Amino acid sequence: MGLHEECGVFGIYDFDKSNVVPYVVFGLVALQHRGQESCGIAASRNLEVQYHKDLGLVADVFTPTQAKTLDGHMAIGHVRYSTTGSSVRENAQPLVMNYKKGTLSIAHNGNLSNADELRAYFQDKGAVFQTTTDSEIIAYSIARERLNCSSVEEAVCRALPFLQGSYSLLVMSPRKLIAARDPHGFRSLCIGKLDNSYVFASESCALDAVGADFVRDILPGEVVTVTDDGITTVKQFAAEPAKCIFEYIYFARPDSVIDGVSVLKAREIAGKLLAQQHPVDADLVIGVPESGIDAAVGFSKESGIPYGRGFIKNSYVGRTFIKPVQSDRDIGVMLKINPLKENVTGKRIVMIDDSIVRGTTCAKIVKALKSAGAKEVHMRVASPKFLWPCYFGTDIPNRDNLAAVNYETTEEIRDMIGADSLGYLSLDSLHELIGSDEYCNGCFSGTYPVEVNR
Amino acid sequence: MGLHEECGVFGIYDFDKSNVVPYVVFGLVALQHRGQESCGIAASRNLEVQYHKDLGLVADVFTPTQAKTLDGHMAIGHVRYSTTGSSVRENAQPLVMNYKKGTLSIAHNGNLSNADELRAYFQDKGAVFQTTTDSEIIAYSIARERLNCSSVEEAVCRALPFLQGSYSLLVMSPRKLIAARDPHGFRSLCIGKLDNSYVFASESCALDAVGADFVRDILPGEVVTVTDDGITTVKQFAAEPAKCIFEYIYFARPDSVIDGVSVLKAREIAGKLLAQQHPVDADLVIGVPESGIDAAVGFSKESGIPYGRGFIKNSYVGRTFIKPVQSDRDIGVMLKINPLKENVTGKRIVMIDDSIVRGTTCAKIVKALKSAGAKEVHMRVASPKFLWPCYFGTDIPNRDNLAAVNYETTEEIRDMIGADSLGYLSLDSLHELIGSDEYCNGCFSGTYPVEVNR
Amino acid sequence: MGLHEECGVFGIYDFDKSNVVPYVVFGLVALQHRGQESCGIAASRNLEVQYHKDLGLVADVFTPTQAKTLDGHMAIGHVRYSTTGSSVRENAQPLVMNYKKGTLSIAHNGNLSNADELRAYFQDKGAVFQTTTDSEIIAYSIARERLNCSSVEEAVCRALPFLQGSYSLLVMSPRKLIAARDPHGFRSLCIGKLDNSYVFASESCALDAVGADFVRDILPGEVVTVTDDGITTVKQFAAEPAKCIFEYIYFARPDSVIDGVSVLKAREIAGKLLAQQHPVDADLVIGVPESGIDAAVGFSKESGIPYGRGFIKNSYVGRTFIKPVQSDRDIGVMLKINPLKENVTGKRIVMIDDSIVRGTTCAKIVKALKSAGAKEVHMRVASPKFLWPCYFGTDIPNRDNLAAVNYETTEEIRDMIGADSLGYLSLDSLHELIGSDEYCNGCFSGTYPVEVNR
Amino acid sequence: MGLHEECGVFGIYDFDKSNVVPYVVFGLVALQHRGQESCGIAASRNLEVQYHKDLGLVADVFTPTQAKTLDGHMAIGHVRYSTTGSSVRENAQPLVMNYKKGTLSIAHNGNLSNADELRAYFQDKGAVFQTTTDSEIIAYSIARERLNCSSVEEAVCRALPFLQGSYSLLVMSPRKLIAARDPHGFRSLCIGKLDNSYVFASESCALDAVGADFVRDILPGEVVTVTDDGITTVKQFAAEPAKCIFEYIYFARPDSVIDGVSVLKAREIAGKLLAQQHPVDADLVIGVPESGIDAAVGFSKESGIPYGRGFIKNSYVGRTFIKPVQSDRDIGVMLKINPLKENVTGKRIVMIDDSIVRGTTCAKIVKALKSAGAKEVHMRVASPKFLWPCYFGTDIPNRDNLAAVNYETTEEIRDMIGADSLGYLSLDSLHELIGSDEYCNGCFSGTYPVEVNR
Repeated sequence: MGLHEECGVFGIYDFDKSNVVPYVVFGLVALQHRGQESCGIAASRNLEVQYHKDLGLVADVFTPTQAKTLDGHMAIGHVRYSTTGSSVRENAQPLVMNYKKGTLSIAHNGNLSNADELRAYFQDKGAVFQTTTDSEIIAYSIARERLNCSSVEEAVCRALPFLQGSYSLLVMSPRKLIAARDPHGFRSLCIGKLDNSYVFASESCALDAVGADFVRDILPGEVVTVTDDGITTVKQFAAEPAKCIFEYIYFARPDSVIDGVSVLKAREIAGKLLAQQHPVDADLVIGVPESGIDAAVGFSKESGIPYGRGFIKNSYVGRTFIKPVQSDRDIGVMLKINPLKENVTGKRIVMIDDSIVRGTTCAKIVKALKSAGAKEVHMRVASPKFLWPCYFGTDIPNRDNLAAVNYETTEEIRDMIGADSLGYLSLDSLHELIGSDEYCNGCFSGTYPVEVNR
Repeated sequence: MGLHEECGVFGIYDFDKSNVVPYVVFGLVALQHRGQESCGIAASRNLEVQYHKDLGLVADVFTPTQAKTLDGHMAIGHVRYSTTGSSVRENAQPLVMNYKKGTLSIAHNGNLSNADELRAYFQDKGAVFQTTTDSEIIAYSIARERLNCSSVEEAVCRALPFLQGSYSLLVMSPRKLIAARDPHGFRSLCIGKLDNSYVFASESCALDAVGADFVRDILPGEVVTVTDDGITTVKQFAAEPAKCIFEYIYFARPDSVIDGVSVLKAREIAGKLLAQQHPVDADLVIGVPESGIDAAVGFSKESGIPYGRGFIKNSYVGRTFIKPVQSDRDIGVMLKINPLKENVTGKRIVMIDDSIVRGTTCAKIVKALKSAGAKEVHMRVASPKFLWPCYFGTDIPNRDNLAAVNYETTEEIRDMIGADSLGYLSLDSLHELIGSDEYCNGCFSGTYPVEVNR
Repeated sequence: MGLHEECGVFGIYDFDKSNVVPYVVFGLVALQHRGQESCGIAASRNLEVQYHKDLGLVADVFTPTQAKTLDGHMAIGHVRYSTTGSSVRENAQPLVMNYKKGTLSIAHNGNLSNADELRAYFQDKGAVFQTTTDSEIIAYSIARERLNCSSVEEAVCRALPFLQGSYSLLVMSPRKLIAARDPHGFRSLCIGKLDNSYVFASESCALDAVGADFVRDILPGEVVTVTDDGITTVKQFAAEPAKCIFEYIYFARPDSVIDGVSVLKAREIAGKLLAQQHPVDADLVIGVPESGIDAAVGFSKESGIPYGRGFIKNSYVGRTFIKPVQSDRDIGVMLKINPLKENVTGKRIVMIDDSIVRGTTCAKIVKALKSAGAKEVHMRVASPKFLWPCYFGTDIPNRDNLAAVNYETTEEIRDMIGADSLGYLSLDSLHELIGSDEYCNGCFSGTYPVEVNR
Repeated sequence: MGLHEECGVFGIYDFDKSNVVPYVVFGLVALQHRGQESCGIAASRNLEVQYHKDLGLVADVFTPTQAKTLDGHMAIGHVRYSTTGSSVRENAQPLVMNYKKGTLSIAHNGNLSNADELRAYFQDKGAVFQTTTDSEIIAYSIARERLNCSSVEEAVCRALPFLQGSYSLLVMSPRKLIAARDPHGFRSLCIGKLDNSYVFASESCALDAVGADFVRDILPGEVVTVTDDGITTVKQFAAEPAKCIFEYIYFARPDSVIDGVSVLKAREIAGKLLAQQHPVDADLVIGVPESGIDAAVGFSKESGIPYGRGFIKNSYVGRTFIKPVQSDRDIGVMLKINPLKENVTGKRIVMIDDSIVRGTTCAKIVKALKSAGAKEVHMRVASPKFLWPCYFGTDIPNRDNLAAVNYETTEEIRDMIGADSLGYLSLDSLHELIGSDEYCNGCFSGTYPVEVNR
């Protein structure tokens, strides 16, 4: 809690030429957890691109009336989280541009770590930028390469090596839908099949949402192109895979399978590991919804302590609310997740959360549990200590705000949040979550798979 | 799934005269599950009432900016579900009126079974009605009695005996906040205390949301009045309690305690009873979110079959969506709840849902589970067969649409929904959910606690 | 400038049963000058009434999409000006109610001077009021009478004698469209014919807008009913006509003809009279747009001094604007009407305005003219001094704000506004504007055609 | 009627560093007649630029709340007319970009006749375009030059020679406000002074609106720069002036003075010339509002035939309206301008309009006048025949739609519009309107001041 993913992407190409926009709407709703600030869809038919994007949830931006204004046999969509600012609406994606060869629409999930350098490079050549998105940089990169090669997919392949950082990318040219994933595979991207269409999505749960069958993940460094002639992998450049481990711990939906690993399973394993690493005598294991729940189930199975619901989550809570002025009561958190007194009263509780960022929310939840009658609250955290920034798309607060930075010892953090005991998942057990070493744990270890500009 | 509660109410009176509107906003958000179509708040200060109401969720209608336009040391709020119609906005509550003694604001949860007769009665005396809400009828009833008695609370007490059906009512006069519950206690209503304020809410979870302590439920037939002089119970008229059993099964939040019975507990008992009444050999018990989950936990505990999450619910799904035109695929349900393949594949599943209404959604869910790899799906329903209309505020489809009416036997329904076995909770075990016979089961039995106009 | 009309009404009944809503939209746009705060339409077909109303201009509230949600072979509409307040939206008209005999929709232009007494009367009988509009009182009055008579038109005829003050009224029952005008005829109301429809409108310009032919004015005290059987005058009760003279001077559009008198003509006569009563040696006559223009033409014709445009009016000016904070410049007025330097520089100007209310705007305009190079500005006012309140629907500021009250002599007012000379139209020449004595000049004389509650 | 200007620009630089945004709002409202589709403002303070733009009128887009979100000691604004399309919102101006030297904000009025060539040129170098506006091309042009020179104003001066066509331009760099006008001076642009600020506006009426004093017109080919150090003219490149004559005839407000010529005066002269070139025996001269009115006054003065108002214009008419389906009546035009029966009945009318485009609206107006009782209608057109396209920013329909193209003789056009006589202003008298030959009459003559790509 307290972290934000930046984006989700969804695209589809239908060989039967029927209108695919409704599917993109469904797919984006399934990816809404990856970004709630703005969303957009660009649809292409007969070489013409229409698009609509705005601030708001998919269901609000793409009402049936609005969705009907778009039509295309191929389309890409995007959901986005972003920090507030006057240019928020302008930064909504997909970005639709005209370059030498017609339109170019781009939806990007990730973060270019050399964005500033690339922007400066192009500006030195006279370029102007209208947004602060990486997509615009990617567009320039593709446009530049396109001048010297014979196809847009080749241009994409030539452009990508210049991009450092993370990207799961959908690019739509007048006749082609191209999907690409950075060589480290930081962010997920998979392919599905629905009738006579190919579907691309940040997570497999979005394939389910449109009734598509999962085909496979796009490989790190792979560029896939769909045209009327079919689907082809045009290139793959090698690098050491470094999937964002935090996708499994927090961002992704438990019903998604990413790079062959079930998110649900990864969380249950995290819970199992916590039970092994930080056992405790208790009556009930509960999870902080949503991402702590499956780890709690894993902890329960390993420890034999029964699992139960600890909280009811209110999904109607909006972004901002009027606050009672005269009160020092802390009622905001309770509005979002309310302890289930019936379950927790009189019990010694093991509470699993995905992570501790600032620690303030944790402290409130622990306090709420005790107010609800919990005798003891033993907090277990399904990730190691958060100590370092992410350069690949996760919005982590400034280091000065991180609990694990501000408090020297785990004991001090435990004291601050008011728990009876506290245990973090150990850094060296993270590989067990996904059964391989092909992940990035930079935010925990400070060691990144690529050089970063600190 | 497929049924709708009609309303939720929330009110507060602060002796310290601070602005209570923010608390009402919080309280209504906590009650949002009881009605999502429209909402409103009326606030009173210095004998003047301001109000705002509109279509939409509380978080959208009462943005911080909008909420700040209201101020009062007492206030009542309302969330409402309603069928679509041109006059929907006009029917939003609270209803604010001027009568002989000043303003009268009314928020009503329930359904008057003699509304037509009462409306005709008043029209015969020259009354005009601007809405189709019961609140307007209640207003006329109170206004009429107020002519012949010395206080508004007395007028309320005189008026209530004329109202048949269900009502949990908040009434705000220039100086008083009055809460009343019908003599059968069909709908819930409870009292809380927050600093120097009294709080009234349809469910106790809304007290938690504002940080208030639960004091007690308002008794069936009780009228409670708060003025500057304190809180008084002005009257109580007797009748046989007949609480809506469906509040426990489906409507209420599991973290609410209604008339001394934990909703969570009632659901777990329903699950336990199902395990006893319809045992089955299986690998996993899952619940259809949200209301089937706790019954699934109960079934698991009783049967020893492990509980697990069967679905991921998408809380971002809006009311309406553009539908793919050319497809006969049924992707809407999957967008809302997606089976967790990891958990269900290869398993014999017990699936608990709160009820079967039309049966069409059930059939889709069963099919989705099987597509996700479930070997068997044994459906258990945490309520008896739905056979009759409700006259007290639950929006049940026409009998012609009810599965239990359209199919003669349970076996036929099982066949229709595609489950491997099907079991309903027995009618005569319902009392075990709440530990008493003081409930209404009219929708299952066709026997109602009061005479109804069929 | 500075005064406000309260309302305009428009109704239509089509014997061919085609949808009349588009005509009502057009008619209301033509009457928009009579009220810009809110508007609404109620349409009836097959005994059912649909309605929509909201804050905003007709073109914004009744977009094509919105207008298409309404359908009816008869319909009434309303535009309204009102003071700001939280209940503004609730007070939008038409008011649609259900009474003993079905629906009753009412659109009212005017002001009941005994509204408080009537409201109290009905409240004493137990009535509740949801708005502060006179329409609700009228509804109660009709509903009460309807209990003891055999038709709605008879009920209207019986109810009207209890209403004091001004009303031009459209009432729609399930089968009938009724139009009524108060016995003094304060506010205008006329009948037109369009193909096989009867049309009713506050001003004849709205008949022109829909292509209808003017038939005649509804007489003071007349009640006209249209049903499938045709149009009938069901009653007429006598009183001394007392048309609002300010309709001619300021409110109505110059292209309207009210009670046989052209508004344009009346204004030209006012100008002619001013030239006779307050002659001056000058180079150019200009009018303050819009209502001063025709009087200026009249002054020019009578005096022989050339007429010219003195200002350009900006019709894009909205209700509220951000104001430069640090400036003491008075740029708001200039944004609305900008002097035409080309015309006024170096000239001795006669400037005609319809009235002086507070005098502040006049002062700014005079100053602006002088800044633009006018050598002299001789102000002529096309009405007598504003000294008294209006009880019949004109929104006049409190007496303390009236220039003619605050300054003892015309010379003092002239000094305040900075004009070189100032002349008002004499009170005893007002009758020449309309060629009869059948008018109300209460706001100038303090003498009203009926007793008023001061 | 039937033609559209494309844009208006307004900018201000305050040496005292106070917030100038409110002035820009006022200025844009005064220029609203030049574009009603979208508007925007970019404001700069401390090297940072904030902007807001959207579809809608200035008063709707820049509500006080919205306007307060912007702050700057310099700012530029834009109003825009455009054809409908999905990308309309994206094309709103000012365009705000980041280039090598920081932000660059551009507001452009005019039309580049070599836009396609320039766009292709930049695309050939790898550029991407996100809009279809000329501003984006201008931005690229400036950015390119900025790489090789030492100041933004020098970059502007270097870039402009590559732009062909018309432009009145405001450019805001981090520290400078630059105003430029194309070497032919097609579109107007003037400088004003307000306290310690410099103001730039498309028309002088906008200076009046903010209380600024007119200083002078920017010369064709002049580039003016304002910085903290004051105002400087950095360059002037020569070309034959070719001001758009249609600004005087139709687009500009009569209270504006453009390049030393009063728009009002120019129109009166057009009327005078018409009276000389096409005299007629008649009773009344009227003008079609707004732009025909002053020419009518001129005709009246020259001919001695009295001037009078012929129509009332309804300024509340929105863009789109629901249309009565079953009617073949033509009521739309009458809703906008309604003949003043009182003035025209029984009279021989001279009606002046600014131009005839398609002729359909003219025909309706003539018909309406005759329906209103006019005995004869003699149409006089304050411009020559419309025969050719404009390449410099006026939105003229395709030639196939022009009346003067479709009908061979004036007599045929007269017959089509139903007038009793018809006379156009002669092409060779146009110079009398502005007292010089420095104008472009390409749309009448087909002869353009620069080579165009037909």
